[in-house]
Amino acid sequence: MENENIGQHSSSCSQESSEQKHCWVCFGTDEDEYETNRDWVSPCKCRGSTRWVHQSCVQRWVDEKLKENLSIKAHCPQCHTQYIIVYDEVNCLVRILNKLDKTANQLCPFLAAGVVVSTLYWSAASYGAITMMQVMGEREAITMMENTDSYMLLLVLPSIPLSLILCKTINWEETLLLFVQRYTSHIPLLRTIMPSFLCEPINSSANTVQFNSVVNPTTTLCAALLLPTTATVVGNLLFNNSSYSYLQKTILGGLVYITVKGVFRIYQRQHNVIKEKTRKVIDYPETDSEESN
Amino acid sequence: MENENIGQHSSSCSQESSEQKHCWVCFGTDEDEYETNRDWVSPCKCRGSTRWVHQSCVQRWVDEKLKENLSIKAHCPQCHTQYIIVYDEVNCLVRILNKLDKTANQLCPFLAAGVVVSTLYWSAASYGAITMMQVMGEREAITMMENTDSYMLLLVLPSIPLSLILCKTINWEETLLLFVQRYTSHIPLLRTIMPSFLCEPINSSANTVQFNSVVNPTTTLCAALLLPTTATVVGNLLFNNSSYSYLQKTILGGLVYITVKGVFRIYQRQHNVIKEKTRKVIDYPETDSEESN
Repeated sequence: MENENIGQHSSSCSQESSEQKHCWVCFGTDEDEYETNRDWVSPCKCRGSTRWVHQSCVQRWVDEKLKENLSIKAHCPQCHTQYIIVYDEVNCLVRILNKLDKTANQLCPFLAAGVVVSTLYWSAASYGAITMMQVMGEREAITMMENTDSYMLLLVLPSIPLSLILCKTINWEETLLLFVQRYTSHIPLLRTIMPSFLCEPINSSANTVQFNSVVNPTTTLCAALLLPTTATVVGNLLFNNSSYSYLQKTILGGLVYITVKGVFRIYQRQHNVIKEKTRKVIDYPETDSEESN
Repeated sequence: MENENIGQHSSSCSQESSEQKHCWVCFGTDEDEYETNRDWVSPCKCRGSTRWVHQSCVQRWVDEKLKENLSIKAHCPQCHTQYIIVYDEVNCLVRILNKLDKTANQLCPFLAAGVVVSTLYWSAASYGAITMMQVMGEREAITMMENTDSYMLLLVLPSIPLSLILCKTINWEETLLLFVQRYTSHIPLLRTIMPSFLCEPINSSANTVQFNSVVNPTTTLCAALLLPTTATVVGNLLFNNSSYSYLQKTILGGLVYITVKGVFRIYQRQHNVIKEKTRKVIDYPETDSEESN
């Protein structure tokens, strides 16, 4: 590339000095009368007609480039040489202030990420504390938190919503369904009481699609965060008059809720598998005009 | 479209009944010997060679389509008629469970949005409470919060970080700089002490670019949220031995910090404007090989 330019240069060298300058931005020449006080510059490796440009014209061009993207450097559109741009020196105070600005702009994304993480952490810890009060009863929870090491609390409280969400992502119902489907056919008693589970899915890909469609992230999040509340409500409804403690009632309520929900869900899924197997594409109905033919 | 099909249909009608069926998926015909127990279906408006397809073949095709996107319906690739797909009826319980699932999946995005908003709200309120304690002193802040209506607190506390961020987005330094630039030339005293402000930017677009580059959202967020801490530190450093109250010290510290920072920033910007005006694109240095030519 460079060698080509040099070749061009050497061949047209003798003419060049006598040739008039052309600005490749405004097409003005150095002989134009109104072109007073305009500096010429040859900012790149181009030779020939694109060699010369007015200082003010190339500055306007650089302005346009910087307007698009401040972080890129300005290049010659022809030979892609990066322009060498110089400034007068600024005083020491301005240099320090500029450097401080740059450092702040580099640090702030990390600080902002820290703000986001703290926000999440603080909300998770608050949810953990509220959940403990809900599950154990307010007085017991406060007593327990006061007796626990505060560093331990800072670790345990945010882990409560986190572990709820993680547990919710485990698809135990799916595994149990596959297990039930496999063993129903082997055990005569099960074959009698659960005939629908004899039906195993033929097309596994279609089933995977169908099951995955049920799980979406917002549903998982909501179900996980609402579980303690549901457990408390169920526990209090079912074991209201028993001598169990608040925590025991909630745990029992939670177990009952999860079990009942799991059974219903497995039942529903198996029946949807069966429904899927009865799928049939039917003939398109003949229209009246066709029938008359 | 339909009329065309009917036209085709009527012209080939007499042949069609005698013609053998071709499946457009597997290219099998109804005369193939190994084609036992395969139902034929004509699921769309197509006539002629693409009219017939095996039930199992079209089902495989529908599976492929549903794998790509569960929410779309399956259509004929030729005439784009939507296939009519029927299932055996499921029992009432499964229907209710399916409907519950669908409702839950529709509600959960809104619930999840609620969770996000509550997280933000709770963090903002906590930041507000911490800031009040930092700015007023812990004891005074708690006394004040206890004496305030709790609904009022729920409104005021989250508005503290919000108003800090909103105030930070107001670019008062920019406005003041333009004001100073305009009036320096008119007042002789100012012209003597601030000669650099006599220089007004020529190219306003380039300046806008340069100024905007300094402001980025994470910097605004961090600067806004750190302002109370900075104000407290500056206030305590400067007015440590004075008789001012904690709140007065913080306010004075904040004012001093904002003023000093504003003056420095205006100074820096004006000098950067001057620096920008000295910008010059220089000649590309001739390489050795060129000079030897």
